[in-house]
Amino acid sequence: MPGEFDLIARHFRPLAGEGALDLGDDAAVFAPPPGRALVAAADAMVAGVHFLPDDPPGTIGRKLLRVNLSDLAAMGAAPLGYLMTTAFPKGTPDGWVAEFAAGLAADQREFGIVLLGGDTVSTPGPLTLSLTVLGTVAPGAALRRAGALPGDDVWVSGTIGDGALGLRVLRGALPADPAGHLAERYRLPRPRLALGAALAGLAHAAMDVSDGLAQDLGHLCRAGGCGAVLDSAALPLSAAAAAALAADPALLPLLLTGGDDYELLFAAPPGARGAVLAAAAGTGIPATRIGRFRAGPALATVLGKDGAELPLPRGGWSHF
Amino acid sequence: MPGEFDLIARHFRPLAGEGALDLGDDAAVFAPPPGRALVAAADAMVAGVHFLPDDPPGTIGRKLLRVNLSDLAAMGAAPLGYLMTTAFPKGTPDGWVAEFAAGLAADQREFGIVLLGGDTVSTPGPLTLSLTVLGTVAPGAALRRAGALPGDDVWVSGTIGDGALGLRVLRGALPADPAGHLAERYRLPRPRLALGAALAGLAHAAMDVSDGLAQDLGHLCRAGGCGAVLDSAALPLSAAAAAALAADPALLPLLLTGGDDYELLFAAPPGARGAVLAAAAGTGIPATRIGRFRAGPALATVLGKDGAELPLPRGGWSHF
Repeated sequence: MPGEFDLIARHFRPLAGEGALDLGDDAAVFAPPPGRALVAAADAMVAGVHFLPDDPPGTIGRKLLRVNLSDLAAMGAAPLGYLMTTAFPKGTPDGWVAEFAAGLAADQREFGIVLLGGDTVSTPGPLTLSLTVLGTVAPGAALRRAGALPGDDVWVSGTIGDGALGLRVLRGALPADPAGHLAERYRLPRPRLALGAALAGLAHAAMDVSDGLAQDLGHLCRAGGCGAVLDSAALPLSAAAAAALAADPALLPLLLTGGDDYELLFAAPPGARGAVLAAAAGTGIPATRIGRFRAGPALATVLGKDGAELPLPRGGWSHF
Repeated sequence: MPGEFDLIARHFRPLAGEGALDLGDDAAVFAPPPGRALVAAADAMVAGVHFLPDDPPGTIGRKLLRVNLSDLAAMGAAPLGYLMTTAFPKGTPDGWVAEFAAGLAADQREFGIVLLGGDTVSTPGPLTLSLTVLGTVAPGAALRRAGALPGDDVWVSGTIGDGALGLRVLRGALPADPAGHLAERYRLPRPRLALGAALAGLAHAAMDVSDGLAQDLGHLCRAGGCGAVLDSAALPLSAAAAAALAADPALLPLLLTGGDDYELLFAAPPGARGAVLAAAAGTGIPATRIGRFRAGPALATVLGKDGAELPLPRGGWSHF
């Protein structure tokens, strides 16, 4: 494996944007866009915990970047740049790092974001990555987790459960869907930046679904001081997820609690239904009403197809 | 070990500053100080690589924070906030995390910085930390690595070699100094923020010494397109380091290449000597002239006490 400086120069310097000073200084320096508030989030991923060690190298950095971008989307923010630290196991092949960086380059183009800085170290443990994303939002316009009101609709973007099913497929616990949709959704989340931005001023509260839909709806409930009822029959499913569920209805709790969705979960008043659907249509990102916030204890209740409360085996995915 | 959410609530939420939204949202939101450029740096640390697994928990987070603050100091920037991701080995005791967080709290008070966000995950590997620091600097005033001119003095702040000697002491390879100065310097770098800020407009080029003085001086040479001669007899040494060197003169190359100094290394014209010393006196951070930049190949040459070039066993500390 090449040395730290050589590796940075060959693989990461080409990702550096304005302000990164070619990764040759002690820090990045840049002027924040005038008149905007700054938004910052950080996430870490560990091989074998947050991604599979044999995932394609080109998807691993992208997953981390997209998980962070999903946090920006949940705040209605626009991406600006990122800093990344990488702890590579000794002996990581140079070609692996090249593929890893090529994936990031593709996503930088897709999401209009640049590398601002970081650090590259070695570890005797598993590959461990950390990424801090910076973005901007109009002052006062950030979407927050708090704000859902009784009577608001519960909305979710895209489809739910694909990531959790994809992980099962990749582990051999579920038959693969022929098109590879589920595995692809596990490996490459789709940050809903355009929809998040369009929801500013429209949604009362928002977050991204990372720990499982049921648990994350519970977060919105606690932040808003109200309850929610989720109708599992209304869950938006991809064709692949719907087929998996039809083949094994016992998968429903996994879809609701499995995590790795990175969809937007948000509250909006019934009067905004038309505007939400217009925002969805305008951004090409579907939005589906899946329930209602209600007065009462700050709990998310999930109803099964029979209208009775669905018992869920656990509250979601905790990293411990 | 408690769950991720409980751990964040009890140990990290008390560190959260304005803009962090109590760590309860998907991202931090804050207004950048008007009229300032933003500065951002990120560093990672792995147990057994960048710190000793049995270092006191209260020093480990502080070391990472200070290493990052040292990057801000090298740019002449003032600290604003930080985001931190922690990958804890399963079974990390709650008391360990409490001490870790208490150390960060002490440093937040000392350096006037707050936690803005982050992520807490578990790892089957060693404790792995990553921190992104954000700061500000007057537009155009950031110190850069490029800019040293032939004829400029080479300056360094504080004392050199303590960190490298401290690591040897902690590993039992050197007798301990009675006051524990060397080990303390290894565990708790002293970011030279006040001096860095005072050098803006005075120094032609600057960086912090993290990889070893000789190697880092080589970085300033390459960035400036000139050479440098360093007089090892002029090295500023602590009493403990001077005693260690007197007992074993063969330690000199370690002092020059060992790293973990986190002092400022900078270039300033001879006409600025008085101003540099005044900045040092005004901030209480010593600065010592240790050599001269010169025309020629972009190499740092170190002279021994006899005035002959001192051969150095390696170019510094690379993390691979």
